[in-house]
Amino acid sequence: MNRPIRMRTDPDEVRARILEVAEEHFRRIGYHKTSVADIASELGMSRANVYRFFPSRHAINESIYGSVINEVDEIAIAIARTNAPALEKLDRLLTAIHHHNKTTLVEKKRMHDMIVAAMQENWTIIKAHIERMVTIFEAIIREGIEAGEFKVRDPAEAARAVKTAFMPFFLPILIEHCVQYGEDTEAGLREQIRFILKALGKSD
Amino acid sequence: MNRPIRMRTDPDEVRARILEVAEEHFRRIGYHKTSVADIASELGMSRANVYRFFPSRHAINESIYGSVINEVDEIAIAIARTNAPALEKLDRLLTAIHHHNKTTLVEKKRMHDMIVAAMQENWTIIKAHIERMVTIFEAIIREGIEAGEFKVRDPAEAARAVKTAFMPFFLPILIEHCVQYGEDTEAGLREQIRFILKALGKSD
Repeated sequence: MNRPIRMRTDPDEVRARILEVAEEHFRRIGYHKTSVADIASELGMSRANVYRFFPSRHAINESIYGSVINEVDEIAIAIARTNAPALEKLDRLLTAIHHHNKTTLVEKKRMHDMIVAAMQENWTIIKAHIERMVTIFEAIIREGIEAGEFKVRDPAEAARAVKTAFMPFFLPILIEHCVQYGEDTEAGLREQIRFILKALGKSD
Repeated sequence: MNRPIRMRTDPDEVRARILEVAEEHFRRIGYHKTSVADIASELGMSRANVYRFFPSRHAINESIYGSVINEVDEIAIAIARTNAPALEKLDRLLTAIHHHNKTTLVEKKRMHDMIVAAMQENWTIIKAHIERMVTIFEAIIREGIEAGEFKVRDPAEAARAVKTAFMPFFLPILIEHCVQYGEDTEAGLREQIRFILKALGKSD
C-alpha cells in the first residue's frame, strides 16, 4: 500500500522517521519483540515500503546503534578539544563517558536487549568505536607528555592500556552488573581514574 | 526405577558422577539442550533419583560452575604462596589466570553457554570469586610495599583497581570477543600487566 504523499517527502526524512519509530518501539515494547511490520504499521507504511529505505531489520538496528555510538564519540571529542590540562581532560572525559553510558544505556532498560545483541552481532561497529576512543586517549596523553604532566614511553600503548583498564566502566553490560548488584560505581570510578592517572606517571 | 546397587554407593560418589556426566553433556550437547532426564538416562538412574542428590537443575549448574571457579582460585593461591618478589608474582598470577580462562573456558566452546548463563544467574558466585581475587592481589601488593617494590598508599584500593584494569583479560565473555575478532591477546596482556605494575609504582 503506497501512499503517494509519502513518496514526495524527503527520503532522509523518511529514514529518520523510521529510525525514530523503531527506537521508540525498542524502548517501549522491546528489541526482540519489535518487527518491521510493527514499525511500518505505526508509520502507516507497507513493510515493502520500509524495506525501500532499509534493506533489512539488521540495517535498522545498525543505524540506531550507530547513532547511540555517535553520541558517545561527540562527548569525547568535545572534551578532548577543550583547553584544560591533559590530566584534567582525561579525568573529565572518562567520567563523562561512564555517566553517559550508565544513564542512557543502562538505566533506560528497554535498550538493554539491543545492546546485548549489538555486542554479539555488531562487534565490528563497537570495535571501531573503541578504536576511536583509543585515538582520542592517545592525543590527550601526547599533550600531557609535552606539558610534563605524564611520563609515558609509548603513548599508543598507554592509550590501549587506558581503554582496557576503563572497560568495566565503559561497556554497558559490565556497568549493568555493578548497578544491578548495588556496587558503588561512583567510588569505583574515582579509584579507577586515580589508578589510570598514576600509571600514566602522574605524581602523587 | 531405583537400582539397589546404586543405593549402596557413597552419596558423594554419586554426586560426583552426576556432575561429571552433566559437564560432559554440556560440552558435547550444549548447556541449554541438556536436561536432567538426559543426565539420569546416561547414568541409568531415574530423574527422581537424580533430584535426591541435587534439588534442581540449577543446583547442578551451580556445582559445576563452582568447580570451574575453584580451579582458578587454586591457581591464584598457589602462585601467591611462592617466594618470588611481589612484582614477579603479580605478573605470573595475572598471566596464568588469563591463560587458564582463555584455554579452559573460551576454547572449549561448549562451555560458552554455561558461562553466559552464569553471568546472568549466578553473579553472586562470580562476585565472591572476584572478591577472593582482590584479597589475593591485596596480599601481594602489601608484600611489594614492604619490599620497596611498589609505591601504593591504599593497598585495598589498589587491589580493586588492579582487578578492574584486568577485567577484560579475566572475564571469559570479554576474552572471547578478542579471540573471535583476531586480536592479539598475548601482546595486549603484556601491555596491560606493564601498565598495572606502573600504576603500582614500579620504576621504569
